Amino acid sequence: MKLKGNIIDIPNGKIFKGEVTIENGKIKSIEEKESEENHFILPGFIDAHIHIESTMLVPSEFAKIAVKHGTVATVSDPHEIANVLGVKGVEFMIENGKQTPFKFNFGAPSCVPATSFESAGAEIDSDAIKTLMANPDIKYLAEMMNYPGVIYDDAEVLKKLKWAKHYNKPIDGHAPGLLGEDLNKYISAGISTDHECFTYDEGLEKLQKGMKVIIREGSAAKNFEALIGLLDEHFLNMMFCSDDKHPDDLLLGHINQLCARAVAKGVDVFKVLRAACVNPVKHYNLDVGLLNVGDDADCIIVEDLNDFKTLQTYINGALVFDKRESKIEHVEFENLNNFNTDKKEISDFRLESQAEKIRVIECKDGELVTNELIENATIEDGNLISNTKTDILKMAVVNRYENQKPAIGFIKNIGLKEGAIASSVGHDSHNIIAVGVSDEAICKAVNLLIENEGGICAISDNEEKVVALPMAGIMSDQNAETIGRQYAELDKMAKQLGSKLHAPYMSLSFMALLVIPSLKLSDKGLFDGGKFKFTSVEVL
Amino acid sequence: MKLKGNIIDIPNGKIFKGEVTIENGKIKSIEEKESEENHFILPGFIDAHIHIESTMLVPSEFAKIAVKHGTVATVSDPHEIANVLGVKGVEFMIENGKQTPFKFNFGAPSCVPATSFESAGAEIDSDAIKTLMANPDIKYLAEMMNYPGVIYDDAEVLKKLKWAKHYNKPIDGHAPGLLGEDLNKYISAGISTDHECFTYDEGLEKLQKGMKVIIREGSAAKNFEALIGLLDEHFLNMMFCSDDKHPDDLLLGHINQLCARAVAKGVDVFKVLRAACVNPVKHYNLDVGLLNVGDDADCIIVEDLNDFKTLQTYINGALVFDKRESKIEHVEFENLNNFNTDKKEISDFRLESQAEKIRVIECKDGELVTNELIENATIEDGNLISNTKTDILKMAVVNRYENQKPAIGFIKNIGLKEGAIASSVGHDSHNIIAVGVSDEAICKAVNLLIENEGGICAISDNEEKVVALPMAGIMSDQNAETIGRQYAELDKMAKQLGSKLHAPYMSLSFMALLVIPSLKLSDKGLFDGGKFKFTSVEVL
Repeated sequence: MKLKGNIIDIPNGKIFKGEVTIENGKIKSIEEKESEENHFILPGFIDAHIHIESTMLVPSEFAKIAVKHGTVATVSDPHEIANVLGVKGVEFMIENGKQTPFKFNFGAPSCVPATSFESAGAEIDSDAIKTLMANPDIKYLAEMMNYPGVIYDDAEVLKKLKWAKHYNKPIDGHAPGLLGEDLNKYISAGISTDHECFTYDEGLEKLQKGMKVIIREGSAAKNFEALIGLLDEHFLNMMFCSDDKHPDDLLLGHINQLCARAVAKGVDVFKVLRAACVNPVKHYNLDVGLLNVGDDADCIIVEDLNDFKTLQTYINGALVFDKRESKIEHVEFENLNNFNTDKKEISDFRLESQAEKIRVIECKDGELVTNELIENATIEDGNLISNTKTDILKMAVVNRYENQKPAIGFIKNIGLKEGAIASSVGHDSHNIIAVGVSDEAICKAVNLLIENEGGICAISDNEEKVVALPMAGIMSDQNAETIGRQYAELDKMAKQLGSKLHAPYMSLSFMALLVIPSLKLSDKGLFDGGKFKFTSVEVL
Repeated sequence: MKLKGNIIDIPNGKIFKGEVTIENGKIKSIEEKESEENHFILPGFIDAHIHIESTMLVPSEFAKIAVKHGTVATVSDPHEIANVLGVKGVEFMIENGKQTPFKFNFGAPSCVPATSFESAGAEIDSDAIKTLMANPDIKYLAEMMNYPGVIYDDAEVLKKLKWAKHYNKPIDGHAPGLLGEDLNKYISAGISTDHECFTYDEGLEKLQKGMKVIIREGSAAKNFEALIGLLDEHFLNMMFCSDDKHPDDLLLGHINQLCARAVAKGVDVFKVLRAACVNPVKHYNLDVGLLNVGDDADCIIVEDLNDFKTLQTYINGALVFDKRESKIEHVEFENLNNFNTDKKEISDFRLESQAEKIRVIECKDGELVTNELIENATIEDGNLISNTKTDILKMAVVNRYENQKPAIGFIKNIGLKEGAIASSVGHDSHNIIAVGVSDEAICKAVNLLIENEGGICAISDNEEKVVALPMAGIMSDQNAETIGRQYAELDKMAKQLGSKLHAPYMSLSFMALLVIPSLKLSDKGLFDGGKFKFTSVEVL
């Protein structure tokens, strides 16, 4: 097979008319030759850090969409499924991914559970990390979020790092805002990347200290604008990633969008492609071709170098995307889950109190951080209840792994005037999170998800709508188009119920993420992320 | 234990008065504190690429000297012993090294034998590389000298690279002068370092393409002056090495000398120490401490930051050098060898000929490259012989692994007026190389080495002097001081015999190194390194 057009030679910074010959899945030759084709041939894009689960798609369905945008490989941390199913979940991701031509590269999740202040479905301890590291399918130790553990020499953390080093596998970082001495300690522990930088100066310090900085632009966190100015000088040590990307966003674009934006900013296209194609292969030692003779033919054809609109995608020489059609086929799989709670009673959501003041989570649109507010309590029949007038609504986090009493809190800015919304996607432990205008609506929404063994839903006075996520309670067994449409409909319904948030389910899913302050609710209770300890709803 | 003085904090680029507390071999704490000590505390130095064998010392004896210069670790390619003894030789190096506190990090030699135009004592094929790569004591795949093999997709070479990647171990390069497309191919094969750059521009291109460049300053090849100008900008991606270092040079200094020279050139001391201490640990994933709390206490005390004169060296918290005394103890070992040739007859060195002109190797002082000369033949009794007047001397390379007829050639510039010199250190196969004024003297020198099963020697009309190298025919079983003194005496004798060369034995040992052009002599015959094929002594 021959591909003709403008060939992009990244190492030499050259573009020339020519012909790429592919044989047995490899690049057999590349020759300069006149061609009437005006499109461009280049290596495929790589997402250097993505939790596939956040797309609500299993790997095989994710791959179908990703190849449309010219992505041929990911470096992926199965952290979400691991919190639900442990190593079995990691194995599912690997095996499902292997049934496609797409080049998934999974890491071993380093922080499962994320904290001891919540109930996860599984634990991955240092012994399990040892076993995972020995597995050739595991390419790296995934983001070490427990940076206090690194800095203060937590024995389990050190053991996990030791096993990664023992097997010569890279260790990914996750250290938002970590600088100075603490950063030095973190780097000296062998951690070599960071995708959490949110300022130019932070990125620069990390680069100057020898880290690789991954520019993240996901559905939730967006750091492209802050960091892109570093690429010109540091193009050998930067990559692109999405981290968390929702299904509707994935349908619109992927790493190709970041390339287009970087080029529009005036960054040299060869430097952009270093970050988008070459650097992940080098850093993570990936079996992904880079358009060199002898390489796997993992390459793409794009219309131009402004939009990077993908016309064709090849993986191991096989055409996996052509114009509008993804050639990656549906993969059958059996849903795995860990959903063991019985349905709840309305009375389970009562919070008996005489308090006049309560501590309230202030949800901020588009941010993971929250504020703590002190507000007037609304009490009915001795039970603290939602108040739609003040928009202080009752929130519950329900342990989905065993029968436990729901944890109750209050939240401002969700905005519902009717009904309730709920989700079993709730970082990091993926318990059920629900917010509603009454105990009854909350209970109904929670039970709807329990019935479905996972999903996201909305309840009004006379309607209920659910997107089932039967794979571990966090992923669909449907394709991206279906899930994208269903997600959009549900999002619309939440807004009809009164929510003014840009993406209510995304906001909801982060309200139990304890590692990001200030006030969050876990299945075990209200949590002060600043002081890193539990606190009370009642202010006495 | 506490060390007090000026503490060098490389990551922060700071120096402060303080106290380092060492407990159980680790850095327990580092505190700012007034101190009357004016010396400096810093991580130990690392030689990022050295063939220990070239010091003629076994690892344990090498370590004794290296710690005097503040070196605590090496990245070492046991290429020389592997050419003699194969994997058994590699294992000897590892085991001998392990009996010292010094942190040796051995690689798997990638090119044994170096070429098919010479007889080595062993072969390390891709199956053996697979086994070595699986061994946790093997830290990397050592210098891939066969760059044509990489560029032209030699199947065995590709398999060796594949096994290194499979085990996530770095692959070292060796690509003097390789640039442009060929370099891209070499890098794309996964090779990440080069220590053979001899110009600034070459180093810059390799750095810009993402390689780590190791500045080499050995006894033979010296690239410091050419490359040091790159360090200021590329300090995250450069290291220091000696490659080949002779015993007399090792006694004088090591990486500390390069630090002193770099600082004298005006390079920021923190950048110098990145190259000398930090970067090898990161690139090769070494278990060597970098003066962070929790690290192995692998650190040194130096008098100042100009000369880097070492006062004390600690490895794993143990004092291994104090003022003038190395605390590393002698290690008993059994000599291993591969020396299977019987003594030769004078007639074995005859070269019957009627030719008027012969092809002569021109040895150039201090260089590995040679020229080809066409000179008048001197014939006696139908035998081509040495001519001391024209300084065209007979040279022989004798297969030491089995009984074969010696290969005969002629060489200019060795300068002997009497006797002969010989060496069983002969890169890369370590056969016996001899040059002398008569067949008789050559035969005597060769037989002296055969009797000793390896060494270097000189023969005059009435004296013979030999430094025995009974360990594989390339290393001594004595200590560095003894071997240094013996080597100096022998060097003096070679000069008394007439040699004007700066280091006659060093020059001799490279006259069979076929991979460096133009004209060389292997045990199989005269070799044209430019055309990479055998040629004839006689010019007809």
